[in-house]
Amino acid sequence: MKAIVHVGLKPGVLDPQGKAVADTLGRMGYSEVQGARIGKVIELDLTGIDPAKADTRVKEMCEKLLANTVIESYRYELVE
Amino acid sequence: MKAIVHVGLKPGVLDPQGKAVADTLGRMGYSEVQGARIGKVIELDLTGIDPAKADTRVKEMCEKLLANTVIESYRYELVE
Repeated sequence: MKAIVHVGLKPGVLDPQGKAVADTLGRMGYSEVQGARIGKVIELDLTGIDPAKADTRVKEMCEKLLANTVIESYRYELVE
Repeated sequence: MKAIVHVGLKPGVLDPQGKAVADTLGRMGYSEVQGARIGKVIELDLTGIDPAKADTRVKEMCEKLLANTVIESYRYELVE
């Protein structure tokens, strides 16, 4: 089983890395780029986990380590 | 229009950040985690772009700036 965890800055939180990307694309001639936001995708390989508990366990991992919930939001999917 | 660009390390390329996450989760008691790979998602806000050219333009941005195609692969979607 795999868990695909998406972590991104909450709306309103400044994203300097995204701003750098958008500004650079603008300077390169891509004037259509008005902004950019950058997030992470963490793909976890899970083995020997009870599928019924996987959801709770992955949520815990997000809360404890994978996302900084003060400034970041997360969502995840479990896939076979 | 938005472009959602997914950038990740190619298979076989060492992912030390992913290894750090997997090892840490293991030490925290999540022994079901066998590995982790970390990728980026770049969300671009595009305005005033000819939809017929958007695909070519975004592909160029990926090749020139957003992905290091020696070690990273990318894919993207265009959404309204």
